[in-house]
Amino acid sequence: MKVQGFIRFFALLRMIINNTIMIKTDILIIGAGPTGLFAVFEAGLLKLKCHILDALPQPGGQLSELYPKKPIYDIPGFPEVLAGDLVDGLMEQIKQFEPGFTLGERAETVEKQEDGTFIVTSNKGTKFHAPVIAIAGGLGSFEPRKPLIEDIEFYEDKGVKYFIKNPEKFRDKRVVIAGGGDSALDWSIFLANVASEVTLIHRRNEFRGALDSVEKVQELKSAGKIKLITPAEVIGINGAEHVESLDIEENGAHRKIECDYFIPLFGLTPKLGPIGDWGLEIEKNAIKVNNALDYQTNIPGIFAIGDVNTYPGKLKLILCGFHEATLMCQAAYGIINPGKKYVLKYTTVSGVDGFDGTRKEAPKAVVKAIV
Amino acid sequence: MKVQGFIRFFALLRMIINNTIMIKTDILIIGAGPTGLFAVFEAGLLKLKCHILDALPQPGGQLSELYPKKPIYDIPGFPEVLAGDLVDGLMEQIKQFEPGFTLGERAETVEKQEDGTFIVTSNKGTKFHAPVIAIAGGLGSFEPRKPLIEDIEFYEDKGVKYFIKNPEKFRDKRVVIAGGGDSALDWSIFLANVASEVTLIHRRNEFRGALDSVEKVQELKSAGKIKLITPAEVIGINGAEHVESLDIEENGAHRKIECDYFIPLFGLTPKLGPIGDWGLEIEKNAIKVNNALDYQTNIPGIFAIGDVNTYPGKLKLILCGFHEATLMCQAAYGIINPGKKYVLKYTTVSGVDGFDGTRKEAPKAVVKAIV
Ligand SMILES: Cc1cc2nc3c(=O)[nH]c(=O)nc-3n(C[C@H](O)[C@H](O)[C@H](O)COP(=O)(O)OP(=O)(O)OC[C@H]3O[C@@H](n4cnc5c(N)ncnc54)[C@H](O)[C@@H]3O)c2cc1C
Ligand SMILES: Cc1cc2nc3c(=O)[nH]c(=O)nc-3n(C[C@H](O)[C@H](O)[C@H](O)COP(=O)(O)OP(=O)(O)OC[C@H]3O[C@@H](n4cnc5c(N)ncnc54)[C@H](O)[C@@H]3O)c2cc1C
Repeated sequence: MKVQGFIRFFALLRMIINNTIMIKTDILIIGAGPTGLFAVFEAGLLKLKCHILDALPQPGGQLSELYPKKPIYDIPGFPEVLAGDLVDGLMEQIKQFEPGFTLGERAETVEKQEDGTFIVTSNKGTKFHAPVIAIAGGLGSFEPRKPLIEDIEFYEDKGVKYFIKNPEKFRDKRVVIAGGGDSALDWSIFLANVASEVTLIHRRNEFRGALDSVEKVQELKSAGKIKLITPAEVIGINGAEHVESLDIEENGAHRKIECDYFIPLFGLTPKLGPIGDWGLEIEKNAIKVNNALDYQTNIPGIFAIGDVNTYPGKLKLILCGFHEATLMCQAAYGIINPGKKYVLKYTTVSGVDGFDGTRKEAPKAVVKAIV
Repeated sequence: MKVQGFIRFFALLRMIINNTIMIKTDILIIGAGPTGLFAVFEAGLLKLKCHILDALPQPGGQLSELYPKKPIYDIPGFPEVLAGDLVDGLMEQIKQFEPGFTLGERAETVEKQEDGTFIVTSNKGTKFHAPVIAIAGGLGSFEPRKPLIEDIEFYEDKGVKYFIKNPEKFRDKRVVIAGGGDSALDWSIFLANVASEVTLIHRRNEFRGALDSVEKVQELKSAGKIKLITPAEVIGINGAEHVESLDIEENGAHRKIECDYFIPLFGLTPKLGPIGDWGLEIEKNAIKVNNALDYQTNIPGIFAIGDVNTYPGKLKLILCGFHEATLMCQAAYGIINPGKKYVLKYTTVSGVDGFDGTRKEAPKAVVKAIV
């Protein structure tokens, strides 16, 4: 017992030294967009556990990152649904199956083990071990468009942020946001009540966004709660160990402003990125799959579902990802439970048993005499 | 003008004499289940008009007919939705595209015209003319299970009803309902406030249904608003031109009860029926389709979507029908607009223009200076 304890201790120590954590699951889903999220539900019905990895700080993929407050009209059964509400609905639907989430990390490499399982490693060194991988990577991992400022990489963990994971980090700090779109507007509004000082810098006088966001910023500016510097650009960052001040060019003139954080929000570009080097067949920047059967790629055990895949007649629509995820899970079941046959059950008839011990079920019919 | 008028008049007269109406549309959808309904929406986005034909008196397929009040848990984005509510949502979603409905008629025959278009004829002689047919027939056309009573066919348009299309028909009439399940219970409850007299006959004392339905019937029975005869069976129908009375066997004894309508609700069985003879490739009572492309059958121009089709890995799930309908519509567009290329547009970005002149669209972003 004591010896085993020691062995465990040293194994843990080695993991910590290697700076790696190993997460084990049935299906590793890369991408927390609608397709990846719904895959958790379908896998759960088959008693398969999922872990989701996404480069973004929040789930929802394009819907959360690009148009959370916009209505979608072609989700079956919803005459209209806000993208953000659809993501909330999916998160609620999969809750019972307790998916693991690793957010803010990008899948970087894959290694096939001798036993046919895979180890995926993220850009932060986290390792994931699973017999099945479902790539639900959409248009790719969302990478921020960075301003062309010398040394900006140096400051990336030292006060420069392209994403806002935890707004509390900025409490009582001086924050400079750069950008002219919805993200810049909405985060300025949000942080006006958190940070000690919010400065919004944009290279034009005009902002482009939802009318109420533009109006709200106008209001906060008039009330002195947001400082506005336009037309202007951040051209330099200063500070020994952390951002201390920024160099600004405003109307040809240069000045310096002090701050603790610099948040450039210039939009995101999706990049298929490292997954492009995994040996998968790629066509038009998407992964070729066997759509006649199970959306498996040319590497057995690796599937590609949703926007990230391609096949004759492919449509990059949310509802198509749902179907692909569902068929994919059946094939995953076959890989994980070789030889076992799964008989499809209707959720209405059989109910849904969560991994968290909860059960959803239709009210039972009674058999009762009427007298 | 006058001559043309005459010609039109005689054409109309001939149609009336032949007892045929010819309905023209872009896509004739056979089956108003969730798959057929959603196809209307996807077709509408492509500016294609649809007409739906269903043997049942109401849209919704299995959801409306078999489990309207039961929850479904695997519709993406809905942690839980009653089947009837999902149908309502779909009806609302397709409203803008003004689909035609012919309900209570069964597709019987198909003829391919020289120009490649099709004419489908229903069991009531209605004709439909379309370049594309989408069979969304589910498990088949729902046919009532009929009680084994001599001459019952003779009374089918004369007081015997297996479906209730328009409950007003029974206002102030004497109605006998037979059956022991949800339909018999729910229609007894509903008609108790419409008919002058409702008698419910069942061969057992026990009914099988939702608890609140059973309790409600008990209540109405106690209040004298529903007459109950159990355990009993209807064994004969009497009347010269119309149902006038029924012969009942109750506990071995025979008696007669007077009534205007007899409604046996013994459930429905789906039958692929006449479509099975259309020359389509059939496997396991379902229609084989090309799932690697567009869900077309072996007859070009005829597609099969939803529960009615089969292919390797097929799952008879609602969400799969939605995807199949969507891809099918793209292929239909190609047939109806040869040579034209359709570029996919997101509903969120381009909005939805209904055939009824309405438009749904996301609130536009503004470009506005903040001063
Ligand atoms: C403005 C706009 C409007 C739209 N309107 C509609 C509409 O009305 N109807 C409709 O059906 N569709 C619409 N779409 C398309 C829809 O958003 C996509 O089809 C959908 O998001 C695809 O879902 P997904 O889960 O496959 O991928 P995504 O939503 O793209 O999610 C993929 C996720 O994977 C992550 N990822 C990728 N690679 C990696 C990696 N290596 N490591 C870690 N994470 C990774 C990404 O960060 C991302 O979060 C619209 C898109 C836009 C931009
Ligand atoms: C009790 C029960 C619970 C279920 N639970 C779930 C669940 O939880 N999740 C899920 O995804 N699925 C569930 N299902 C299955 C789901 O209902 C079907 O997948 C779905 O109804 C298929 O839709 P459809 O439009 O393809 O066909 P259907 O709903 O079967 O509709 C087909 C329609 O076509 C009509 N039709 C057929 N032939 C003809 C003809 N020749 N002429 C005219 N009309 C015709 C029929 O009358 C019918 O109305 C359940 C089914 C049942 C019975």
